Order: sequence, then structure tokens, then C-alpha cells
Amino acid sequence: MSDSQNPDEDTLKILLATDIHLGYNEKHPVREDDSFVAFEEILKHAVEQEVDIVLLGGDLFHDSKPSTTAIVRCSEIIRRYCFGDKPVGIEFLSDQSYIFKNLRNPIVNYEDPNINVSIPIFSIHGNHDDPTGSKATSVMDIFSSNGLINYFGYWTDLKQVQVAPILLTKGETNLALYGLSHIHDQRLSRLFRDGKVSLLRPQEEDVFHLFVLHQNRAFRGANNYIPETSIPDFIDLAVWGHEHDCRIMPEEQLNGVYITQPGSSVATSLSEGESKKKHVGLLKVKKRAFELTPIPLKSVRPFVFETVRLEELSDLQEKGIIKYSEHTERVVSDKIDSIIERIKNERKAQKLKEMLPLIRIVLLYHDEQQQINAIRFSQSYVDLVANPEDMILQKPIIKTDGTKRNRYLTGDDTTYEVETEADRTEMLNSLVNKELEKDSNKKLKILSVVAMGEAIARVINNDDADAIADIIDFQMKAAQEKLSSLGMDENNFVELLEQLNQQRMEEAANEKAEVDKLLSNPKRSYNKAVIDDEDDDVDDIPAVNTSTSVSPQKPARGRGSRGPRGSRGPRGPRGSRAKKT
Amino acid sequence: MSDSQNPDEDTLKILLATDIHLGYNEKHPVREDDSFVAFEEILKHAVEQEVDIVLLGGDLFHDSKPSTTAIVRCSEIIRRYCFGDKPVGIEFLSDQSYIFKNLRNPIVNYEDPNINVSIPIFSIHGNHDDPTGSKATSVMDIFSSNGLINYFGYWTDLKQVQVAPILLTKGETNLALYGLSHIHDQRLSRLFRDGKVSLLRPQEEDVFHLFVLHQNRAFRGANNYIPETSIPDFIDLAVWGHEHDCRIMPEEQLNGVYITQPGSSVATSLSEGESKKKHVGLLKVKKRAFELTPIPLKSVRPFVFETVRLEELSDLQEKGIIKYSEHTERVVSDKIDSIIERIKNERKAQKLKEMLPLIRIVLLYHDEQQQINAIRFSQSYVDLVANPEDMILQKPIIKTDGTKRNRYLTGDDTTYEVETEADRTEMLNSLVNKELEKDSNKKLKILSVVAMGEAIARVINNDDADAIADIIDFQMKAAQEKLSSLGMDENNFVELLEQLNQQRMEEAANEKAEVDKLLSNPKRSYNKAVIDDEDDDVDDIPAVNTSTSVSPQKPARGRGSRGPRGSRGPRGPRGSRAKKT
Repeated sequence: MSDSQNPDEDTLKILLATDIHLGYNEKHPVREDDSFVAFEEILKHAVEQEVDIVLLGGDLFHDSKPSTTAIVRCSEIIRRYCFGDKPVGIEFLSDQSYIFKNLRNPIVNYEDPNINVSIPIFSIHGNHDDPTGSKATSVMDIFSSNGLINYFGYWTDLKQVQVAPILLTKGETNLALYGLSHIHDQRLSRLFRDGKVSLLRPQEEDVFHLFVLHQNRAFRGANNYIPETSIPDFIDLAVWGHEHDCRIMPEEQLNGVYITQPGSSVATSLSEGESKKKHVGLLKVKKRAFELTPIPLKSVRPFVFETVRLEELSDLQEKGIIKYSEHTERVVSDKIDSIIERIKNERKAQKLKEMLPLIRIVLLYHDEQQQINAIRFSQSYVDLVANPEDMILQKPIIKTDGTKRNRYLTGDDTTYEVETEADRTEMLNSLVNKELEKDSNKKLKILSVVAMGEAIARVINNDDADAIADIIDFQMKAAQEKLSSLGMDENNFVELLEQLNQQRMEEAANEKAEVDKLLSNPKRSYNKAVIDDEDDDVDDIPAVNTSTSVSPQKPARGRGSRGPRGSRGPRGPRGSRAKKT
Repeated sequence: MSDSQNPDEDTLKILLATDIHLGYNEKHPVREDDSFVAFEEILKHAVEQEVDIVLLGGDLFHDSKPSTTAIVRCSEIIRRYCFGDKPVGIEFLSDQSYIFKNLRNPIVNYEDPNINVSIPIFSIHGNHDDPTGSKATSVMDIFSSNGLINYFGYWTDLKQVQVAPILLTKGETNLALYGLSHIHDQRLSRLFRDGKVSLLRPQEEDVFHLFVLHQNRAFRGANNYIPETSIPDFIDLAVWGHEHDCRIMPEEQLNGVYITQPGSSVATSLSEGESKKKHVGLLKVKKRAFELTPIPLKSVRPFVFETVRLEELSDLQEKGIIKYSEHTERVVSDKIDSIIERIKNERKAQKLKEMLPLIRIVLLYHDEQQQINAIRFSQSYVDLVANPEDMILQKPIIKTDGTKRNRYLTGDDTTYEVETEADRTEMLNSLVNKELEKDSNKKLKILSVVAMGEAIARVINNDDADAIADIIDFQMKAAQEKLSSLGMDENNFVELLEQLNQQRMEEAANEKAEVDKLLSNPKRSYNKAVIDDEDDDVDDIPAVNTSTSVSPQKPARGRGSRGPRGSRGPRGPRGSRAKKT
């Protein structure tokens, strides 16, 4: 079937997936295999769908230096599904020594005569598997050097970014694949703002432009995310990694770019976003048209996120309830039992094997007397739930006054009118940065518990033996500076913080940023910390911005002018938008 | 040339190498590449000599969990030299799923249809790259899972060892390759003594029996080494890994077994043994005859080990010398200058490029006034010597009385009549074990500084976060037991130790062993410590032996009776012993 009747001969098929986080929770008694099982399912779909390539959006691994077992399991899975005699039907037209210039083996794996690749995997790195240490290496280099993954999009010049695409051709379809591995969000957002990011658009007209990146998409403080409209408008489709909630159906942006956000294949935090159904995408590109079909992942552990808002004490008293804690336990256990039952029935209906679910109950209480002993309570769920240890999260309900501050916080699904660390941190990032932009002399230099904690984490995780000494040295100097400057900037600043009644939180957040900044100073040969935070956002607390002179600019644009978008059809059912020509 | 005129068609050619220690000193400003450069040269020889296989005797890596860079560089080197279109001319006759049963991918790499292996590498693990952690994995599993190395000889049942050989055939030559990866020396020597080690000899008669192991060969305390005569006498040749001095010329043992000890390809300690010229071996096996040709490694950094014995103060005074330290500096700098000059000329004569040498001067002094400030002294050699930081080792000369104790210590080349930690430790191992054999109730349970040091090392190197808590718990219990038992066993014991005036050293040595024992308890999911000791022997300090009832037995023997050894020719020049038939 090599004649023109073959409908596939011009259709480039790509399996899209991201944030597979191999090795996540691999020591957990129940969840240890989850990340690997999902990866295996993803590559099975690649084989079944006979895709030409697999494209990953970063964070294939949960750590830059994963466990031996994680590396071994990844090798085994890739060799099982992506090696074989099936010929690869695409041509690689770019200069490989340029595209893979940061790699030691600058060749696309399926052209290596000594390995028999059936489905090449292309991947950028994310913020979890990014290069660390004095030699700036990560597990991605291991999988590049052994020929199992084509690792691309790694950019070292952080003053300006130029992305040269990989040009792939299949029949009459030409694909320009632009990869941008993770860069610190604040830095990259500034580069975008200053027009320092360019995607080197090929001169050919009949090219489909596919961009893959791994950045904050959701607002996490001013300059701490990449606005969707930063993507140059000649890009046809952007694959957005890093965000774990599945928004895989392509969404058209104001500038005409479509964005697909596949989301993670394993829940690495018990947030509401992670509880959405997990998918990967089958992307078919034919000339300039594309069609994206979501493929639900069946092997992923079910995860139910629910919020239980308790009644006020006065309402309970009216009903004659006075043992508040006992009452809470009854309410919560009824809720959990019904979730477990529902999951069981759903899986039975779908003919899926039984699997302990992940459950997160956010318990909103009015009064401390309503709290329960979550540890004792969870013990009866050990054989019923995958995560009894962190199933219950209790939060106080705070009375709010409906001011701007609260409206400001309601942008995100997962934000309640309660005080959480994430809420405080997010708000503070914005406010502190805003304050600092007014006066660039203001710097927060109070490092203490967080700094030492970070330093110890680096010693343990990264063999960075000098971290503690360097931090102490830095702290002493910072404290001296702070004392001498006290009285002028500090008062304004304290005022601002007192107004928010959150000084402690803010210091901690900024300490973390200062420590990150210090330890990622290129003059020091430091590794980036690999800290097993449940909440990824913590990694992204901004470094203190000391620059005020840079004027905002328009987002960068590609060289050529935008062609007519008429070659794109309207969005069909299930995301199908292809114009059948 | 496939007719019978081809002299190679029945000759199985094997490149022998061991203890390559990839990643050793990889952060050293001068020596960082040494281990990789040597490995690359070794595989170049394999290609030039057109060998059928490469056989490694363990410790390919210096760490079970090496750096990302070390893994990447090893992958690159193996793919460059051992992948390609050259057909592999040997047949693998054994049951692969049995031979590689401890591995996840039980297939010899050159039979995998998806990778194009030209020279298969076979390797056991050593004591540096042995499995660690709750999942018992090491970097060897990474290189097994990615198809770059055939990792074999890993044995998990430590009560009895049965080695099934790999059967390889080339033309009329049949090779049985027995691999035994590193096992703790005391444990293995006990298993040998008790007849619990068996090598499963194939029934065929016309087989060459090649054994590879990685153990202490030199005496390092009673039961803390494997006697050469433990090797079953039907073995034709044993390749002995772990010992770093090159004794590659086969040495015939009392039981007729020949042993070749290739030695390391990189000096990991500044001992005299490491200063011997480094070689790998080209082994040719034709039917039952073998020939071993040493190949000198040219890329290895030159290393000169010299002892400078200073004159006594009275002799110096007679010559009018009273500034002892200054005099020492002059003597030593003359010595070093002449070494540097000699190395330079030798390399020029051999047309080798210039390379900073390793130099170790053992400076034996009679009086502390003769000592020098080694750090200041070494600064002038920074650009002349690869290791100025540890070039000088100063030791006091101790007057000895010629008793048995001192004769006991003279077995080893590197033993002087001086007090060194290694000497003390070695002697103590023997004496303490002997004492403990008399009374199995005696146990040393004093854990303190060493224990904590070890625990901290495990936390840092192995992410073993519970090590400290476990050690403290163990120490408290041990201290209680010791206090309650004090007065009966302790007095004898103290007497013994006082007689040696070395209690402190002995405690430290035994603490280390106790800690190792505790932390390698299979009930704990612990990693083995990876400590960068210059002296490997420290790892091999014996665990306390509490058993007294086991009666010594003859070494294990193979099933069949030994055939006539007449098929072996006399040893020719350069180790050639083949009988040309």
C-alpha cells in the first residue's frame, strides 16, 4: 500500500504527552509503580496508533538524578515499545550537529545505523529533569547518550533565546518542530517581554509550525508565568508542558495560536487540577491542517478531589449536635465511603481492574473544635485508599470582606476564601515584586531557617558539600547590610507587610528565592535543589527583581509575516479540525 | 578467508581488563578524565586486536551510583567502539534466561536484533559497583538494561554459591566462562572453606574453563581474603579482579590453576602497587591451550612511588646540619625534581605527549623536627605534579625489637617498620578474630564517632534518611548490653588490647564493621555506603565473627576429575604458553 491511496502517506502522526514524572513516589508502598505504568500505556498507544514520533513536553523524570531503578525501568520500556523493525517514515532535514549541538552524540537516533528505532521519541527537558551541577547534566543526557531519546531544545544563553526548529518531512507534509526546554519562568517572561526570544522560522511557506515548551501557563504572580499570547502568531499549535491539569483540546488564543495542554500522566500533587481525567493526544498533521484526538489513559490511578464545608457551630447546635469532632468524622467518612463505592462501580462498568483510589478531602471548618485527628481517622482506610496518609486536609474558613484582595485571589479554581500557604505566597509574589519595582534598592535579605533547610537539602540531595558554608557566609553579609539600611527602606516595607499581616510567610518565600538565586549563581558550581515538594509552584517563587529600567515591549515575532489561516478548518467534534483536502 | 587457512577461526580472542573505576576523581582539576581516557584506550585495543569479546573483572565504575557524566561518558565510549557492523563470531550456548536471570532483560546483547553489537562486553560487578538499596541495583543494571554490557555472575543466595558458566563456542574452541561478582570476602572465604561454593562444570571434555572473580587476593587478615588455592583445580585460568597492582602474567598455583591479575587501569590510591605499569591482556584460547599477551596502557598517567628515609639526627649533627626541616625540604625537592625530569625524558623517548605525573613520596623521619610543612612545600609543584595536595606522606620510624609481631607485618611490599593505620587495622583484624573464635560471647559493641560518621555519609551519599536514627538506637542498646556484661569478658579483652596498646584503632575498625553489618541488614532497606576512601581495604574490615562451631574443610572442587594438563605448553616469552597444534 505505498501508492497514493494510502491516506497516511502525507499524514504525520505524533503522540503528544508530557509530565510523565518517572520515579515519582517510587518508594510509596501503593503508588510506587504508577508513573511507570502510565508511561508504558502511553508508548503502547504510540505503537497501536502507528505514530511516526512521540513528542514529550518535559519532566519525563521527576528528578534530574533519578534512582537507578527509574533509569532501568525507563530504558526497558522504551526498548520494548520504540525499538523494532517498523521503518520510520519521516525525513530529518535540519542540521543535526546544530540541533543537537549541546549533546555529545549529535545524531537523531533513528538514523544511527547501530540501533533499530521504530518510534523515535523527541523530548525537551522540564523543570524537574533539567541540567544540574557544574557539568550541567541531567538524566536526559543519559537517555540521549544511549540513543533512547532525542533530547532537544536545550538553550544555554540566558540573555537571548533563539530556537531553530527540527524540520521533519513526511510525504507532502513539512513540520517545523520548535522546542524550548524549561527556563526559569521569570527569566523567560522577561526575555519574551523584551523581544529577546526568537523562533527561527524557515523560509518555506508550506510548513506546519509546532512549538513545545515547559513553563507556567497559569498566573502565579506577576512575571512568574508565560502569557499565552507570548507565543509568536505564526505558530500553528503549541504543546504546553508543566501544567498538570489536562486541557488537551486545542484552545485558540487571541493571536490565533492554538494551545494544547496534555497535562501530566501521574498526579504529583493532590490538587483539584490533578484530579481531572488524564489523557495523551494523537496529533495528525496533513500539510497545514491538524487534528487532535485525546486518548484517555486507562491505567492511571483514579483520583477524587472533594471539598467538604462543615456547618457553622450555631447551626449544629440548633440540631442538637455538640460533639463537633465526632460529627465531622461521620460526615467525612460518609463522603469517603460513597467515593470509594462510586469509583468501584465506575471501574466495574468500564471493565477496569480494581485499584485503590487517591482521595483528597479538603475539610473547611469554622471552629477548631470541628477538627478531627486525621492520622487516627485515616488508619481505617489503609486498605481502601492509596493515600490514607494525606487524604484529609483541614483548613479554617476565614471571614472575608470582599475587597480587591479577595477578588484578586479568585482567578484559580483551587483558591478558597481560606488562608493557605500557596495563597499567601502567590499574593506576596505579586505585591512584593510590585513594591520592588518602585524602588530597586529594596531587597529582602533575611535568610535563616529556610536558607539552612535549603542548604541541607542540597547537601543531601545534590552532594553540594559547600552549600552550608556558602549560605552562612551569605547570611552574615546580608544581615550586616540589612542592619545598616534599617530605618529608611525597612519602614515602608514593614508597613506593607503589616498591612497584610503575613510577614513570616513572605520572608520564608523570599528566603527561598534568595537561596535559589545564590545557589544557582553560575560562579558557584552548584546543583539545583531537587526537593520533593508536593506543590510544584513552590519551586517557582520568583527571585527578587532588582531591575526597574527595562521597558515592556511587545512579544517577539517570527521573521516572516503570518500566512492566511484559511487552511485550518473549523473545530470538529473531539477536537478534530482538519480540512480534508 | 573463511577456509581453514584462517588461523583465527578456532581461536577465541578475549580482551581482559578490570578495575577501570570510571568516575574516580572526576572532580579533580588535573585527574578528572583519567579513568575515561584509560577505558577508551582499552576499547581501542579491543577493536585493533579484533577480539571476540571484552571481559571485565568488576569495578567498571567507582560508585554504584555514579555521576550522570560518568554514565554518559561510558555510554558514549561503548557505543563508539563496541557497536558496528563487524559480525560477532561466537555462539552463546547457555540458557540465557538462566544466566541473566537476575536481570530484567535476559538476553546477550549481540543477539538482540535491535542493536548492532560488534564487540560484546561481559562483566561481573566489583565491590564498588555492587547492588545497593532496597531494590539491590547498581549502575551495572543501567548498562544491562540499555544493552551496552552483558552483566553476569550476580549471585543472591549468600548461604551457598553455584556458578553456572556461560558457554561460548568459536569453531572448535569451547569456552566455559564462570563469573562470580563480588561477595564480602569474609563471607565468601567461609563459603569456600565450608564447601558451599560450586562451579557447575559442563559434561563436555573439550572445554576451556575460565573463571572471573573480584575479591581480596592478598592477605588482609584471617578469613578476609580468598586463598588462591580455593579456585577449583579444573579451572584453566582465573582472572582476578579487585587487586590493583598489575600481575597480568599468569602464575601457576599449587593446584595447577593459572591466575592472571590484570590490575586497575587507574590508580585509586597512592600505594606502591598502583605505581606498577598498567596493562590489559589479550587472551587467545584455542581448544584447551591459551596464550596471554600483556598490552601496556599508554594513556595512563605516570605514577612514581618512592620512599625517602631521612638520616638520624646524630648523623646530621655530625655533618653540621641543625636546621632539620630545611634539610628535609632540600632532600625531598631534589628527589622530586629528578623524578619529574626522568618522567619527562622517558615520555619523550617513547614519543608520548607530556602529562603531569602522580608522585607519592613516603618520608620516613626519626624525629618530629625533621617534618616539613607539606602543604606549603607542595605549592611550588602545582604545575609540575598532578597531585601536589597529597604528594608527601610523612611517617615516623619506630624502633622495633624483631619479635614475631614485626615479622608478621613484613608480608606485604608496602609495609614498613612504622605505625600506620593500615598496619594496625590488618593486624587487629587477625588478632581480634582469633580472640573472638575462642569465645563467641565476645562482641565489640562500642559505636560512637565512626558510627555517626558512617551514618552521616549514608545520609549524604545514599539518601538513607533513617541511618542516623537507627544508629543512635543501636548504640544505646549496645551500650546497655556492654555495661551489664562488664567485668567478665571485658577484662580479658582489655588485657589483650592493652598488650597491643592500640585500643582506639581497634574500636574504630570494629565500629566500622558493626555499622556496615547493621546498615546492610536486609531487614533495613539500606544502601551500601559509598565512601571515597583512598584505601580500599578499609571497606573490607571484617564483621565480628560470632560463630565458633564451624570446622574448616577443604576448598570446594568441581564434579569431574581433573584431566591431564599435558595440553598446556610450557610458558613462553611474554606469557605465551600456547602449544601450536
